[in-house]
Amino acid sequence: MSRYELRFSGAGGQGLITAGIIMAKAASIYEGKQAVQSQSYGPEARGGASKSEVIISDGPIDYPKITQCDALLAMTQEAANKYSHDLKEGGVLLIDSDLVKNIPVGNFKTVAFPIINTAKNDVGREIVANIVALGAMVALTGQVTRANAEKAVLSSVPEAFIELNRKAFSLGYERAEAAAKG
Amino acid sequence: MSRYELRFSGAGGQGLITAGIIMAKAASIYEGKQAVQSQSYGPEARGGASKSEVIISDGPIDYPKITQCDALLAMTQEAANKYSHDLKEGGVLLIDSDLVKNIPVGNFKTVAFPIINTAKNDVGREIVANIVALGAMVALTGQVTRANAEKAVLSSVPEAFIELNRKAFSLGYERAEAAAKG
Repeated sequence: MSRYELRFSGAGGQGLITAGIIMAKAASIYEGKQAVQSQSYGPEARGGASKSEVIISDGPIDYPKITQCDALLAMTQEAANKYSHDLKEGGVLLIDSDLVKNIPVGNFKTVAFPIINTAKNDVGREIVANIVALGAMVALTGQVTRANAEKAVLSSVPEAFIELNRKAFSLGYERAEAAAKG
Repeated sequence: MSRYELRFSGAGGQGLITAGIIMAKAASIYEGKQAVQSQSYGPEARGGASKSEVIISDGPIDYPKITQCDALLAMTQEAANKYSHDLKEGGVLLIDSDLVKNIPVGNFKTVAFPIINTAKNDVGREIVANIVALGAMVALTGQVTRANAEKAVLSSVPEAFIELNRKAFSLGYERAEAAAKG
């Protein structure tokens, strides 16, 4: 049985829980797989750290937590330092290149671009940085199609923000593809 | 180690995931406990069913899924039928009395009031039914104080909706208290 584990990590307020929920909806409702999405709140949450996890599988998911992470998004240096050790050999690490200056080293592929800056300056609203990041994670992980992920994004946002989120998702997807090709 | 398990169940679009996230934030960030919040998306999610789970503990949470449910919210008849069997002896079942007409029977306490109708007619917006339900679950479970839960609600909603959500939370809390006293 295939099992694919994603972690979205960074700071509270960056929209990482929402990004995880939309990824899980894309995988289940639109892609026909099964998914579990979760977040733990411990002492670290009171320090402003945040992470959200998604497990995607073709069948029922017995253990709903990360065991060996396939793909990690790190939106802060602290998150990159803390979670890159759990990445599988051959996994993928996506970082915001403005916020993660000390790039973790390991047997995984690292992709970097200015995620928050793309939201702020190219989409026009910093608040959609999580959707830029989600578009990038969809491109890098290949667990759901671009079309299904876009449907999950657009069905999750208020009508007035559909175009903003569509643009954020597309730019994230395309910048990550370009950055991955190097 | 204390461990308390809550399940919010009903239909997609009822805001049950948000209610679970706010309960977990209340327990961890404001009450100083630890919490895990999760949802599974399987074939049933494509049929419109939705559930969200929260585990609250004084210490680290090893297994993040419901094992024996302490408190269940059921916002549809289907959810009441499906999940009331998992309720612990002495647990609590909260139902929307307009939507759950066949009341499940078991060794647990059942509390009923018209949750959606309270949101629609007494608060004025059906969309805050999940916050009415959350207020009720806070009153019935006693895992977080009313003040800490209210802080978690108000920090989770846009500024323009603070009064609406404050009212929804308070009415839910008070109606559940009154209904529990019978």
